[in-house]
Amino acid sequence: MTPLPHRLLAEFLGCLLLFASVIGSGILAQQLAAGNDGVALLGNTLATVAMLGLLITILGPISGAQFNPAVTLVMALHERTPAASALAIIAAQLLAAPAAVALAHAMFNQPLFQIATHARNTPGELLGEAVATFTLLLTILGTLAHRPAAIALTVPAAITAGYWWTSSTSFANPAITLARAMTDSFSGIRPGDTPGFIAAQFAGALLALAVGRLLFTSSRSDIPPGPSSPAPRD
Amino acid sequence: MTPLPHRLLAEFLGCLLLFASVIGSGILAQQLAAGNDGVALLGNTLATVAMLGLLITILGPISGAQFNPAVTLVMALHERTPAASALAIIAAQLLAAPAAVALAHAMFNQPLFQIATHARNTPGELLGEAVATFTLLLTILGTLAHRPAAIALTVPAAITAGYWWTSSTSFANPAITLARAMTDSFSGIRPGDTPGFIAAQFAGALLALAVGRLLFTSSRSDIPPGPSSPAPRD
Amino acid sequence: MTPLPHRLLAEFLGCLLLFASVIGSGILAQQLAAGNDGVALLGNTLATVAMLGLLITILGPISGAQFNPAVTLVMALHERTPAASALAIIAAQLLAAPAAVALAHAMFNQPLFQIATHARNTPGELLGEAVATFTLLLTILGTLAHRPAAIALTVPAAITAGYWWTSSTSFANPAITLARAMTDSFSGIRPGDTPGFIAAQFAGALLALAVGRLLFTSSRSDIPPGPSSPAPRD
Amino acid sequence: MTPLPHRLLAEFLGCLLLFASVIGSGILAQQLAAGNDGVALLGNTLATVAMLGLLITILGPISGAQFNPAVTLVMALHERTPAASALAIIAAQLLAAPAAVALAHAMFNQPLFQIATHARNTPGELLGEAVATFTLLLTILGTLAHRPAAIALTVPAAITAGYWWTSSTSFANPAITLARAMTDSFSGIRPGDTPGFIAAQFAGALLALAVGRLLFTSSRSDIPPGPSSPAPRD
Repeated sequence: MTPLPHRLLAEFLGCLLLFASVIGSGILAQQLAAGNDGVALLGNTLATVAMLGLLITILGPISGAQFNPAVTLVMALHERTPAASALAIIAAQLLAAPAAVALAHAMFNQPLFQIATHARNTPGELLGEAVATFTLLLTILGTLAHRPAAIALTVPAAITAGYWWTSSTSFANPAITLARAMTDSFSGIRPGDTPGFIAAQFAGALLALAVGRLLFTSSRSDIPPGPSSPAPRD
Repeated sequence: MTPLPHRLLAEFLGCLLLFASVIGSGILAQQLAAGNDGVALLGNTLATVAMLGLLITILGPISGAQFNPAVTLVMALHERTPAASALAIIAAQLLAAPAAVALAHAMFNQPLFQIATHARNTPGELLGEAVATFTLLLTILGTLAHRPAAIALTVPAAITAGYWWTSSTSFANPAITLARAMTDSFSGIRPGDTPGFIAAQFAGALLALAVGRLLFTSSRSDIPPGPSSPAPRD
Repeated sequence: MTPLPHRLLAEFLGCLLLFASVIGSGILAQQLAAGNDGVALLGNTLATVAMLGLLITILGPISGAQFNPAVTLVMALHERTPAASALAIIAAQLLAAPAAVALAHAMFNQPLFQIATHARNTPGELLGEAVATFTLLLTILGTLAHRPAAIALTVPAAITAGYWWTSSTSFANPAITLARAMTDSFSGIRPGDTPGFIAAQFAGALLALAVGRLLFTSSRSDIPPGPSSPAPRD
Repeated sequence: MTPLPHRLLAEFLGCLLLFASVIGSGILAQQLAAGNDGVALLGNTLATVAMLGLLITILGPISGAQFNPAVTLVMALHERTPAASALAIIAAQLLAAPAAVALAHAMFNQPLFQIATHARNTPGELLGEAVATFTLLLTILGTLAHRPAAIALTVPAAITAGYWWTSSTSFANPAITLARAMTDSFSGIRPGDTPGFIAAQFAGALLALAVGRLLFTSSRSDIPPGPSSPAPRD
């Protein structure tokens, strides 16, 4: 079993690289896209999901590659991660948020911490966040149940689709939402809009747990955590 | 064997997420693309095929992940889905169409149901739909015959190509055609144009069944449905 | 062993769909791209390589999915396809060219046969074609030697790269070159420029055979054709 | 064991095709992108990572597909490549740089060797190069430790993300940095800016080796080089 300090380091490092990818690619893509936000979102999507796929592959066997408090909560409720570990993991994820913001901004010679001004507070966007997080968690639960080795493909697929089909462009992650509040760039969100997003994310995640238990336990009643599982027990 | 209620729920949920992805990404992509419909179609394509690939992976083992009345019909004629189940499955798929339309529009703060005004009625577009559906079904039959584990890659590949190489942008699905008639956005189709599209889709699907039987039975005469097959028997 | 008529049908059908994808996606992509040929080439690339990947998967076990006279020639010289079969296969590939042109144009309500006016005759473009075809054949030989199951990924990767890194946008296929001479659209080539392209393609292919024999036989001296091999013997 | 001359030929040929893809696709993409550098970088990304993925697949079993002096150095320090072989391999990689430049320029009918004028010397860009190379090496070490067969997917994913999320667009390779100094096009770098980039790359690579040894040895203490390993011993 991987010791907890290694798992926490893997979660911190994974979140650092993932969150900095989201913010950094938003900055670069908007600089290059000549005013076409569709082109910018294509670049933002490519960077995010490529980084996510490789991090799941190299860090999944160590920490489960959760990188997301909503995922960690569901895994704890799903009895795949003990509560005490879950709290430490979430702390590592949250700690990575400001580090990622500073890293991304430093690469682009910008002030290390900023206050986002991008408004995201319509009812549609809150619904979008709930739907995006629901889809992400349903994807994780379904992949673990049926084809755990595909987790490094299905989770990036959920984010690829989410960036484009939800009105909120699928943050789907409370820690990344906090990070995005600290950047006044393409991927930002006004600090005052974050509580609504985070509440919607947890609502979507819990709904996915309920639906996933109904759908994915009829075909396989017992899912042992394996080497490619993103959520090892302690 | 997965019980029929679970299969119907999986088909409904899969169609809901898939159809809402098609419509939602069409709306967002056109908003962002600054008048460049090529950029909009790139975003629309990414969202559709990423969602399709993950849904096939997580729901395929439950319902076969057909998500399409033309696919269900061919599977019934191919004696992989019993006729009674097929009718119930098609009903679940059709029921998901208005739900998906309402979900996509709600996320973008738009009226829940709309009437499409996008004309799609040239002979070339009808031919395009027949060709697109032929290719989709040939892909399914060939993948099942030769490499069933690749179905979550080949079917999204058929739609990726179809969005770009057919003049109709490859609806290739009667249920999604009805959903698209209820949105006045990038992915819409005028209600009056839907009967032609649906007829072309079934024609293409039946032609694929004939060609597939000729091509794919010479190399392997008997294909048992397996865990990764998208069309389990009852 | 798959009978020759089935193999010829698979080659004809595969070339029909592949070549029509190249031409059709060129037409649609340019219509949508609002004058940005980079966006058009992105759509053209996606359609071509998605179609190529799925056709290799579903038709490879039947005919080897060669779809290309230069590939068939190299496979014959490499003693994987008998000379008599190779001639029949090349005939099927060439026969598919005008059929694909007519299908693509019919879908877009255009005259079925056209004369291309796109000039492609600089020394750089001829070098580009030789390099593109060299890379394609080296990819095929290396994949067959080391990891035949990956052929449906590596060949589309060679075309993806080729569309963008060679000055000729990588036709890399004599049959498709003839088809492109019959369309006055994005993917066309003036008929008078085709002999140079085709000569460059065969030169690149033969160079790849020489380099491939040197490189890929040191590590594995004997490569039996397997079920995922794209070039079965008769 | 593959003899050293074959390994050197594989490294030279792989670098030639990879570096020429980077430069060639930069030229073509910028010609087509109508002033939208975001579209140009999408094409540049696609060509680079598709070529990288296929070269790792076909040449990895021969030479380890290192294609990068920073990777070869880390593999030597990691005791996977002997020092004497490493020096010969780096020489082959460096020799390929001018050959690739000349090939790419010849395809586009340009002067074979040029002097880049693209300035890349801000502190942010140097940090970006270090971060990009750190991520690349961490990806290689983690993939070798946990899932070596995925190396042809994770390394291209690291470059895909790096092109978009780092301010330097992720050269992450000293040999390719020298090649890019010889082209006055999209992918170029002023010769005077190359020492800083190369120093940052080695710094990032060595940091990755330290972090990788900490993270990836806790779960598997001994990693034998296998057939899909990109770094065979002599």
